[in-house]
This record gives sequence, C-alpha cells and structure tokens, in this order.
Amino acid sequence: MSGRGAGGRGPAPKVSALDGEAPESTDFANYFCTYAYLYHQKDMLEDHKRTGAYYNACMQNRAQFAGKVVLDVGTGSGILAIFAAKAGARKVYAVEATDMAKSAKRLVAAQGLEGTVEVIQGVIESVHVPEKVDIIISEWMGYFLLRESMLDSVLVARDRFLKPGGALYPSHARMYLAPIRSNICRQRHNDFQNSMEGWAEFVDEMKQYYGVNLDCLSEDYRKEQLDYFSYTAAWTDIHPSQVVGSAACFKSYDLHTVTLDELKAPLKARFTLNVLEDGPVDAFCGWFDTQFKGSGQNPVTTEVTLTTAPDPTGATHWGQQSFFLHPPIECAEGDVLACDIEVVRRKDNQRLMDVAIRHRLEGPRSTGKDRLTCFHIE
Amino acid sequence: MSGRGAGGRGPAPKVSALDGEAPESTDFANYFCTYAYLYHQKDMLEDHKRTGAYYNACMQNRAQFAGKVVLDVGTGSGILAIFAAKAGARKVYAVEATDMAKSAKRLVAAQGLEGTVEVIQGVIESVHVPEKVDIIISEWMGYFLLRESMLDSVLVARDRFLKPGGALYPSHARMYLAPIRSNICRQRHNDFQNSMEGWAEFVDEMKQYYGVNLDCLSEDYRKEQLDYFSYTAAWTDIHPSQVVGSAACFKSYDLHTVTLDELKAPLKARFTLNVLEDGPVDAFCGWFDTQFKGSGQNPVTTEVTLTTAPDPTGATHWGQQSFFLHPPIECAEGDVLACDIEVVRRKDNQRLMDVAIRHRLEGPRSTGKDRLTCFHIE
Repeated sequence: MSGRGAGGRGPAPKVSALDGEAPESTDFANYFCTYAYLYHQKDMLEDHKRTGAYYNACMQNRAQFAGKVVLDVGTGSGILAIFAAKAGARKVYAVEATDMAKSAKRLVAAQGLEGTVEVIQGVIESVHVPEKVDIIISEWMGYFLLRESMLDSVLVARDRFLKPGGALYPSHARMYLAPIRSNICRQRHNDFQNSMEGWAEFVDEMKQYYGVNLDCLSEDYRKEQLDYFSYTAAWTDIHPSQVVGSAACFKSYDLHTVTLDELKAPLKARFTLNVLEDGPVDAFCGWFDTQFKGSGQNPVTTEVTLTTAPDPTGATHWGQQSFFLHPPIECAEGDVLACDIEVVRRKDNQRLMDVAIRHRLEGPRSTGKDRLTCFHIE
Repeated sequence: MSGRGAGGRGPAPKVSALDGEAPESTDFANYFCTYAYLYHQKDMLEDHKRTGAYYNACMQNRAQFAGKVVLDVGTGSGILAIFAAKAGARKVYAVEATDMAKSAKRLVAAQGLEGTVEVIQGVIESVHVPEKVDIIISEWMGYFLLRESMLDSVLVARDRFLKPGGALYPSHARMYLAPIRSNICRQRHNDFQNSMEGWAEFVDEMKQYYGVNLDCLSEDYRKEQLDYFSYTAAWTDIHPSQVVGSAACFKSYDLHTVTLDELKAPLKARFTLNVLEDGPVDAFCGWFDTQFKGSGQNPVTTEVTLTTAPDPTGATHWGQQSFFLHPPIECAEGDVLACDIEVVRRKDNQRLMDVAIRHRLEGPRSTGKDRLTCFHIE
C-alpha cells in the first residue's frame, strides 16, 4: 500500500464508514488537529487584515470593553482574548479545544494578563464558564464563510453564556458572489485533460504488461478527476480588475438572532449579476465580510469591517473561493445572469460544503436555458 | 480560523483527544480514506516494480496457485486477486474495506473472472470468508515497511483463515539501514533556519503592530519546526552512489511465524555499518524488501523479491525513508558506526512510528560518545 498520507494533492477524505455526524474523535482527527500547531497559528496571525480588524474592533471600542466580561470562542494562541483585555475587559474567558490552550496560557502570562484572561481547555459545547458574559469575540470564519461550521459553536456559546443585550464580535456576516475572468479556468481544464491522457497511457500499459484491462474504470476515473479539477472550488487571490460584473450580496447573517437550525438548514438564495464587460465569464467568485457593530443595546463606537473581497494588495489567508465553469459563459456588457445558489453541509463531514449554482443568461442573447453546476468546498 | 485543511505542508495530525487506539471511525478518517480514490490506486499500480513483482510471484508460480483457494487482504482495485485467478486459483476472496471494493468488482467482471474472484467489502478483522484458504496474498507494506501497521491485518487473516501449511505472498520481509551522503540534509537545515528567521520577523511585527510579545513561544516554535525539518523522516529517492557504507539488514520477518504481539512490541536491533568513503555521513537511509518464497510445506518454484533499495533507475513509490543528521557525522573510510535502533508505534496513532537511532563512531577517531536521535515517520 502506502501513500504520502491523506494530505497533499488529491481529494479530501471521504469517511465512508460513517453515517450522519462524525463522532468527536473523528472531528479531532479531521479538524481540530490543524489548530494545534504554532506554524498554523502564525499563518493566521500574520494575516494582518484579519488580526488588524479584530485589534481595531477592540481598541477602537474601549468603552464597550471597559469593565466587561468577555468570552473568546476558539482562542487559539490567545490573541483575541489579549486584545479584549488590553481594551479594558475586567475578565476574559478564552476557550480552546486543542493543546494550543497551553501556549495561550503562556502568551497571556507573558503579557502580564493572567489576572484578567483565564484560558480554559475544552470544547465550548461542554466547557464550564463560571459566569455570563457581556461580549463574545470569536474568529470562526472558514472558506466561503461557512466552511468548518465553527459558527455553530459560537451560537452555542451565545445561547449558553451571553447576557441579554450582550454583543457578538463580529456581529454580522455577509456572503457575496461575482462573475470573474481568470486563466486558472483554462489551466484547470488542461490539468484535467493531461490527467485523462495519463490515465489512457496507464490503461495501455496495464493491458500490455499484465493483460488486465482497466478500461471499465475509465469513466469513474474521469468523474473523480472532473470532481477534483472542475467541481472543487479553488482558493484564489483575484485582482479587482478580474471582476467583470456586479457582486451580489446573496446572504447576510445577524449573529445575534440567527439560530442553529437556520444555520444547519440548506442556504438558498436567488440573485442577479450584471455583466459589465464583453467576454467570457470563467467563474463565480465567492467571498465574505464580517462587521463589528455590537448589539442593538450595546452598539460599538467605531464600526469595523473585515472583508475578504478581491483586493489589489492581495488576499487574506481565506482568499476567495472560485467556482470555475467549463465551458465559460460567453457574455456581453449589459447581460444579466439570473442565479440561484444552494449551500448544503456534506453528510459525511458537516464541516465541508456542497454548493450548487444555477444560472441563466437573461437579455437578448438568452437561450432561455438554465445551467446547473455543483461544486464542493474542501 | 481557516487553513487549507490538515494536509499539505505541516506536520501530520496529532489526535490529542484520544488515548490508546483510535476508534474505527477515526481510523477511516485518517487512514482508509486515501485508498478509496482511483487516483491513488493508479499511483500504486503504475509502480511497476511493485505490481510487476506480484505479477511475477503469481505467474511464475502457477503450480502453487493452480486449483487453490486464495485470500487477498486489502485488494484495492482487485489487481492481486486478478493475478491469482490468472495464475490458476480455483477461488479468490478479495477483501477491501473501502468503497474501492465496488471498482474491484467491476474490474473483476471486466476480465470475465467473476466466477473465480469474489470481492467482499469489509475489514478483515470482522469479515466473513466462507472457507479456509491455501494462500494469502497482500500488499500491506508502508513506508519503512511498518508504517500503516497493515501487516497486523494480514496476520489476523493468517490466524483466522490460512490452512495449516498454507503460504503467504510475500512470505518474508527485511529491513535495512545504510549511511548516505545527501544535499537534502543541508537543504532541510537551511529551510529550518529560514523558518526561524521568518518567526523572528513575525514576532517583531506582532510587537510593533499590536503590542503583543510572542517571544515566549519562540522556543516551542523552534521545537515544532525542528521536529518537522530535522526529526521527521523524509521520502527520498537515493542513488546507489550516495550510499557510502555497508547496508545492515537489522530485522527480518518470517510472516508465517511472526505473532501480532511481536509486531506490536517495540522493534529493537543492534548492528554495525562500515563506512567505505571519507567524508560526512548525512543520514541513515532505511528501506525494505519482501520475498515470495512460499511456505515450508508449499514453497514456490520461482523465488521473487521486491526491493525498495536505492536504485539508479529510480525509487518505487515507497522511496526510501531517510533520517537526516544535524550535524552530519564526519567519517573516514574504514570507520565503523555501531548502531542501536528502536521502532515504536505512536500512541496517538498506531499506524505511525517513532524511530530512535543511537550511534557511536568506533575506531581510532572515536570520541567514545553515543549520539541518540529520535525521528518520526509521518
């Protein structure tokens, strides 16, 4: 046997032995483990659009933090808990599932904040927090906002520990989709074709060397590779000039009111995209932003927004998730793309998503036909 | 949060929530999942040193297979079961844990062998095989032979299903270590140093931007990176000219007699390596071979060996596992390296290994001192 582990090139694991939700141990193996490494914490910390937004959300709203009790869900290195303490919080509970909790403890002590910040190792669903809190701060966002499903845990924390009128940091989140032009579309299609040529050579070789005809698996291989190269959303760093139409905000969440049930149900939205340039639309590009507005009863002084939109200075570590189309949609300025999107959690791994996008070109060049493409977010 | 999944660059997952053996679902998530992809099956099949050795072991020993009942443990695509059938087996039971069993069924049918080969989806520990078998064939070898611990399953199959006097294909396995010279040693050390410079810049930035001093984590980061760059065995394709001393066969297994208990216990061995060239020894290079000799009562006609030793025509997909030394050992022709090795399964993941190598330079230039280095096989 032997492969270089499940990582690297190739699709993400399918846990075929499981039905329904994964048990906690599998979730640790699949998910939490990554966050136990300082290398990965560094990666997130040095994304200064991310870290800076949280820093500003705290330091520019000291009045909101002064004397308050704060809970940091998934504190990792402890950085957000430290920001909250520096902004004047009386007490910060910093909850972390992995052994990174030990590093957080040391980092807190090194800043002389051990009197204010209490690091608690555990999962938020079962952890004991000694008192109700005024503010919950958390950096829970995954690719395309929802990957990792960590917002679930923040809502659990909200319902268990947030005082009435208390505030979530961030308080709001929005999801966007826009039409883009990108060479990556053709590159991925070429990679797919090369892969299929490699398979054809391989089938010939197996026939010649061992008299075994593998052609009966060619269609399955094609599907597996198509799945990988065409139907898996790609991490991209898109330049704003590549965005060739209007961006639609197709979903927004008020984190104070959204329920766990809403979050777990399929996300369905209908919207239109206005094409602003002649030429092919190679992909739908998806991103998100989060806003720090405080709650209705405890609004912020200074509103802060963290966006992962295409940016000429480069992407955040989230990049944008691009959904490539084979073939591209031939468009002209003034065309309208009528779209429906559905985002569903994967049954075999609730932290990953399937995304179905249906689009129809409207206007004089419309064929009247819908086109549906289904993608994975891995 | 967000990382590009647990794969890619970075250490392998640590399942910190677990004590002792992983439950089956976690084992699926961590281990079996890889084998459910045709892409990965292709990777193994087109390793013709591997596939060819099994083909020869069957086809050059038709007398041993003719009319016999065979069990293939972990059949994957079904290839070894097909070889066994082509070699004349009366019946072949092909057991596979993953959904690859479905592809195996189709591949078997496409060769017109559905009357002979019966594919059974399940894990060998609990699967029902309707009769005792004359031969067990399996390709169970992982990096450094033992990674993946899949031989356990073959021994379970042997003890449950093999007739007295029946044969295992392969029947024997041997492990080797040799001193090598390689630039990769210096490269990895440079990568480590670059990583630490990156960390120093990062610590400065965090202090400057947010007033948070991360220096208290520097030593942990250093250990984490050292672990990754220096103490993780590397997949290498070593040219025979890089082997600068004798190779020691430090362990051999007769698969007919080795017990599960022996296999699960730490492997300890003592051996010497004769240095044959002046200059630095940068690493110990480890590989294995397996032999197809049949059993005492049912020996083969033609013995076949599958070796993963350094080869000028390139490595098998297993490559060799190299254990790099910082600093290298300065040696001269005629020097002797007295070595002790200990290979232990990792507590948090029984399919991975820790390898401790103690060496002492003997001869006129000996310092009399031992040097112990502990590695992981990820």
